[in-house]
Amino acid sequence: MKKLINAVDDVVTDSLRGMAAAHPDTLQVDVEQHIVYRAVPKEPGKVALVSGGGSGHEPLHAGFVGTGMLDAACAGEVFTSPVPDQVAAATAAVDRGAGVLHIVKNYTGDVMNFEMAAELVAAESGTEVATVVTADDVAVEDSLYTAGRRGVGVTVLVEKIAGAAAEAGLSLAQVAEVAQRVSSNGRSMGMALTSCTVPANGRPSFDLPEDEMEIGIGIHGEPGRHRERLLPAREIAERLVEPVLAELPAGDGHGVIAFLNGMGGSPLIELYLMYAEVARLLEAAGVKVERSLVGNYITSLDMAGCSLTLLRTDEQVLRLWDTPVRTAALRWGV
Amino acid sequence: MKKLINAVDDVVTDSLRGMAAAHPDTLQVDVEQHIVYRAVPKEPGKVALVSGGGSGHEPLHAGFVGTGMLDAACAGEVFTSPVPDQVAAATAAVDRGAGVLHIVKNYTGDVMNFEMAAELVAAESGTEVATVVTADDVAVEDSLYTAGRRGVGVTVLVEKIAGAAAEAGLSLAQVAEVAQRVSSNGRSMGMALTSCTVPANGRPSFDLPEDEMEIGIGIHGEPGRHRERLLPAREIAERLVEPVLAELPAGDGHGVIAFLNGMGGSPLIELYLMYAEVARLLEAAGVKVERSLVGNYITSLDMAGCSLTLLRTDEQVLRLWDTPVRTAALRWGV
Repeated sequence: MKKLINAVDDVVTDSLRGMAAAHPDTLQVDVEQHIVYRAVPKEPGKVALVSGGGSGHEPLHAGFVGTGMLDAACAGEVFTSPVPDQVAAATAAVDRGAGVLHIVKNYTGDVMNFEMAAELVAAESGTEVATVVTADDVAVEDSLYTAGRRGVGVTVLVEKIAGAAAEAGLSLAQVAEVAQRVSSNGRSMGMALTSCTVPANGRPSFDLPEDEMEIGIGIHGEPGRHRERLLPAREIAERLVEPVLAELPAGDGHGVIAFLNGMGGSPLIELYLMYAEVARLLEAAGVKVERSLVGNYITSLDMAGCSLTLLRTDEQVLRLWDTPVRTAALRWGV
Repeated sequence: MKKLINAVDDVVTDSLRGMAAAHPDTLQVDVEQHIVYRAVPKEPGKVALVSGGGSGHEPLHAGFVGTGMLDAACAGEVFTSPVPDQVAAATAAVDRGAGVLHIVKNYTGDVMNFEMAAELVAAESGTEVATVVTADDVAVEDSLYTAGRRGVGVTVLVEKIAGAAAEAGLSLAQVAEVAQRVSSNGRSMGMALTSCTVPANGRPSFDLPEDEMEIGIGIHGEPGRHRERLLPAREIAERLVEPVLAELPAGDGHGVIAFLNGMGGSPLIELYLMYAEVARLLEAAGVKVERSLVGNYITSLDMAGCSLTLLRTDEQVLRLWDTPVRTAALRWGV
């Protein structure tokens, strides 16, 4: 295993120390509890957003903490859910009197622990919590760690758009409604060229022969739909665009936000190349791309590969997407 | 070779098509000539900036085209200089009557071709061109493709800071002076965990055993200072910080911009972890970090590894660093 790390047990703590050092103006990091907060808390009376999950998907979630997006992110160990006490502490800390939205990817451990945290914090401090669970991966119905579909790329879009809604002063019910709408209108599909290596395991999570790829991979290396011979990018793009379009909710004249995400080990030259093929296929299908995002945003450690997320938009969603955001990983307008 | 590409000869063209599709508001791409321009040209009377070089270092340079940074970037084939006619065309196109600054990394082919382009454009249209050549890599004195030191990470900082100077309306001589100062006050050192694979070659550029790393690597996989057994991140950080600090120009009370760059194949969790170790060493050495940048900005295809650049700052440099920038890869304040 070749990684830039100290000891395998310290990876998450050491990386969070780096985030704290790199972003003192944006982030305040509780290194002991593995919670990343905004450096400057949101004004009282506004809804707060808490997300989190296993580490290994950086910049998700801590890279999305800041003005216009999350108020706190809870980092678990690599590919392991954060614990209920940790999520409850983050939730209580960021509540500004208007309630807290939990954004949770649909993995059994995450869903259970965020639910327990919501109960804990309601009992202890009366903080009102609403929850949206993302489940946008069309690859498989159930999976290794999931009852129902896995939550993947749409999570980034939910965090941006619900974060904008909260910043605009909407109520908890309204922010939750927007978050749920984005979650419901997004679909994703991923693929891998290589496995990832979990530090504590020290070897690749699975074997993938030199001439094969896996279509429908999960962000923890969970099996996808099938393996096949490595194909040119234009045919890989078809393997992603077709199943996503097949399950994308019908629009009312509105187009999509197209999000081409890297799995962590694929360089940007390849991600843009993949996006060119995706854009061509969407144009051929008559799908209008309203906005796009290309880069490594929800990764799987050092896995090479990519995923595509399409989100059916509407006027409010587009307006909220365009509002300023200032986080370590996503920043515009400020 | 596992890459998200179509044919090896089309990688650069296909990737530029993706940039064009992803950033219609920011970029206008001449896909045939491999030149990336701003979507909206700068106002007349301001100095323009042109950079470029071999592809495979994305987001450098095209990802830095936009308000507050470059006016045009010329992409060569992978690890191959752009040609003189291409650079001349870009230079003539962006001249707004105040002259053009060429920002060139110190590789023999780039230096020669930008020089020929400057002569061509002066002869044809009278455009005045000034040039800054970056040569910040302290690893080796001469190298495979270089007489003198290699230009690496400081190039990103030169493009940002000189771009801000041009946007502020400074003259060509003044912008060139700032660019030269940044170039002279920056030092870098890189390391690799793995080789990179040039698409046209189809196999890794060099072999690096599973338990070894290369210290002082170049961004094309050129040999560095030495190989040794893979070490913990804190000791790798020492291998980078010590030689960079040893050659960093003395300050007059001002600190540094610290730039921890990924080589393309290392995920962000590891880059932040490395930055934590770098920040700790700088603090111990009494070096004040004024600003920081962590991420994949000047890469070497799919190479795993990182580099450190330190830039000794002054008041003007810090002020120019902080001004708004709006490019595909670096964006704040707008």
